[in-house]
Amino acid sequence: MNYPIFIKVLGILLTIEGIGMILPLFISLYYDSSDSLAFIISIILNLFIGFIMYKIPVIKHEIKIKEAFGIVSIGWVLISVFGALPFVISKSVPSFIDGFFEMVSGFTTTGSTIINNFASLPPGILFWRTFSHWIGGMGILVFTVAVLPALGIGSYYIFRAEIPGPIKDRIVPRIKDTAKILYLTYIGMTLVEIVLLKIGGMGLYDAIIHTFGTIGTGGLSTRNESIASFNSNFITIVITIFMVLSAINFSTYHQLLKGNWKKFFKNEELRFFLFILITSTIFITINLGGNFLNTLKNALFQTSSIMSTTNFTIQDYTKWPVFSKSILIMLMFLGGCAGSISGGIKNIRILVLLKLIKREITKIFHPRAVIPIKINGKSLSSDEITSIMSFFVLYIVIISLGTIVISIEGFDLITSSSAIIASLGNIGPGFGLVGPTQNYGQFSNFSKIFLSFLMLLGRLELFSVLMLFNPKFWTDSI
Amino acid sequence: MNYPIFIKVLGILLTIEGIGMILPLFISLYYDSSDSLAFIISIILNLFIGFIMYKIPVIKHEIKIKEAFGIVSIGWVLISVFGALPFVISKSVPSFIDGFFEMVSGFTTTGSTIINNFASLPPGILFWRTFSHWIGGMGILVFTVAVLPALGIGSYYIFRAEIPGPIKDRIVPRIKDTAKILYLTYIGMTLVEIVLLKIGGMGLYDAIIHTFGTIGTGGLSTRNESIASFNSNFITIVITIFMVLSAINFSTYHQLLKGNWKKFFKNEELRFFLFILITSTIFITINLGGNFLNTLKNALFQTSSIMSTTNFTIQDYTKWPVFSKSILIMLMFLGGCAGSISGGIKNIRILVLLKLIKREITKIFHPRAVIPIKINGKSLSSDEITSIMSFFVLYIVIISLGTIVISIEGFDLITSSSAIIASLGNIGPGFGLVGPTQNYGQFSNFSKIFLSFLMLLGRLELFSVLMLFNPKFWTDSI
Repeated sequence: MNYPIFIKVLGILLTIEGIGMILPLFISLYYDSSDSLAFIISIILNLFIGFIMYKIPVIKHEIKIKEAFGIVSIGWVLISVFGALPFVISKSVPSFIDGFFEMVSGFTTTGSTIINNFASLPPGILFWRTFSHWIGGMGILVFTVAVLPALGIGSYYIFRAEIPGPIKDRIVPRIKDTAKILYLTYIGMTLVEIVLLKIGGMGLYDAIIHTFGTIGTGGLSTRNESIASFNSNFITIVITIFMVLSAINFSTYHQLLKGNWKKFFKNEELRFFLFILITSTIFITINLGGNFLNTLKNALFQTSSIMSTTNFTIQDYTKWPVFSKSILIMLMFLGGCAGSISGGIKNIRILVLLKLIKREITKIFHPRAVIPIKINGKSLSSDEITSIMSFFVLYIVIISLGTIVISIEGFDLITSSSAIIASLGNIGPGFGLVGPTQNYGQFSNFSKIFLSFLMLLGRLELFSVLMLFNPKFWTDSI
Repeated sequence: MNYPIFIKVLGILLTIEGIGMILPLFISLYYDSSDSLAFIISIILNLFIGFIMYKIPVIKHEIKIKEAFGIVSIGWVLISVFGALPFVISKSVPSFIDGFFEMVSGFTTTGSTIINNFASLPPGILFWRTFSHWIGGMGILVFTVAVLPALGIGSYYIFRAEIPGPIKDRIVPRIKDTAKILYLTYIGMTLVEIVLLKIGGMGLYDAIIHTFGTIGTGGLSTRNESIASFNSNFITIVITIFMVLSAINFSTYHQLLKGNWKKFFKNEELRFFLFILITSTIFITINLGGNFLNTLKNALFQTSSIMSTTNFTIQDYTKWPVFSKSILIMLMFLGGCAGSISGGIKNIRILVLLKLIKREITKIFHPRAVIPIKINGKSLSSDEITSIMSFFVLYIVIISLGTIVISIEGFDLITSSSAIIASLGNIGPGFGLVGPTQNYGQFSNFSKIFLSFLMLLGRLELFSVLMLFNPKFWTDSI
């Protein structure tokens, strides 16, 4: 491990975070200033420590796979620790662990909170909390474009198809280009949603906060009743659309921007995602009954909200009939598309796995047949398939063991298991005592740290975090 | 599809079932005769229809993979339909579907019942119902030895290592030999348990019924309080031991009989199984508290009962703390060893999957390394690994979709999902409204058929049943 460069880059991250805190400081100063001092202290600490770390003497400036790995995982923890400072200093949360939980939930775009009356937070803190979703979403794009492909794990096959030209020797400029397109899309979407929500009748502050919650798929609202409190079909529809957009592979927008609609809609994962979204919406609409159009709107809002792992709410879905609830739980596992801001297992993995099952059935009678698994016309290698299957298996294993661990708390099974599913899938609220009208404040410190760990695990595609527990990672030159 | 041979063999199955019904007829005549006529009619019908089917003119006497497949799946359904006759004729169940559910539950060794007061059934019917577990257990051994290897799916690698001599051209005699050893073990275990339970103070009738429930991993008792009603530590321990024995790969007993203890205990799946069994027991014992030895006994009984998918009960485990309950749910997924009478995913598959995850983590930094996955010192082929992974994925997919389907009934999520897990895993009772003190009678006919289907699906290792839904299976010469 090249520790100097490792520390240097983490220092840069802290510095950026310090700069990022200037925005909530302004918000704080503009509104009631009650939390301004907390931000000033936090900014100074971030910049000071970040600067010291940045100044560490570096001999080899090379960042290898391992360092990239460590930087992402440890970096996410580090900015959560420092991001918690304004919470702790302003006494917005009872303890440091609570602040840490909030920031991990923020930067991983999960959107869980331990705060009982979220809307009562000082404006600066509330802004910082939701801003962290937006920053986290940006971080996920960096991670997907720059780190995952190098690691050869998880969603590395996603962008490959999109990157033009020969692969060899030109990784960096192409990653830069791709990243640029993604950021511009991300920022563009943010601006458009803010404007639309403003047109829908929100104040600028609310519009910005809810846009951060939508585009970052965090789903935290300034209101305790979430989106229901605005009582506006226009706002509901705008947020639905942007939740769906945040759950789609961002690289496909490149095709859209080039006017290649046909290729965009031929994307197999997108079609699968939309198929599940629409089917689930229809089933839930029928199950809920009542005024068709209104129910359809609510059902579509909630399925989009869960699949994008945003979890804004418009109704308390934990009071829906069990049929609709079990569909929502399945969607919590599924999540959105790879290369999007959403969490969960991701549609492309499930699609590949379903194709694999189909192949296995065929192979019983044609054991020697070589049947490739294709996505968007390209065959997956057997390593890629194994990697996807292992991801799925590990995901289920973590949820099973995680449920056992959290159940030490003694909450009911639905609360325990949905807390794990909602944390690992970066969804936010779950069912039972962690439903949308409740919060995670009731858990012990141990569980809060454990759930934070799961949020990170889910966000960083499992394997990248587990690697850190291998002592060799920190010593050997692997 | 060679229909004549297909029908002929099904005819043999019906004839054997008819002969099998003679035993409960005697029981019925010996006790109260109330259900004797039902058995006489059923026996005549079985023998008559079985004989007609057997007499169908057959041109090609060859049974190929496909026919073997069809015979097993359709055969299991057919004997359940005809096995339901005594129930229906004696009016022991309200409807034919209820009788069918009972017999599918019986032959698949699941042990779910729709009957409210099971102990009140006439002795002949009750005997037939539990006898079906024992017959089913025998059927599973045939299936594992004779059909699965030919199909190249699921547990086909299990017996390969045990069969001595060269593979080519000598499949049939070796299968016969292996099968013989298995049957003798099965029958021997049955006799020993009957004797031990008799020594423990049970009447012969109770001893036989409970032995069928143990060895067949069905877990139906003559008493509504199950094993708790005997209030005997000796009986509890005997049943615990035989539940564990029924959950171990029967082919490994071959080594035991040859005095090869070392090889027996070196079996990786067995070690993993025992590790999980003991660890779970310890955790549950600590969680339950109270008198240590007594709690340990109860915990060991229940973990053995769930892992062997027997589900005899000694305490209402649905009232245990949620930590213990979530361990039990995980064990429901796991089940016993491959090649045993138990159900669930099976330990060897989970063991392989865990090894695979470990390899994936290693491979991140050694992408070109070829690391074989070994079980008992032998490397698995990539096809074998893919087949195991697909099984796991399909298992989880079926549970997810199954929960959604059954939740149409409107029962709570725990009831709905545990009904699916307990049916697919051939366990029997689950949690909530399908807990050990309750039954499946509350479900609609649709759900009863659906749950029966899941029991068959689980029993026949998923893929073999799904094949039947491919129209080509019935027409083409694949």
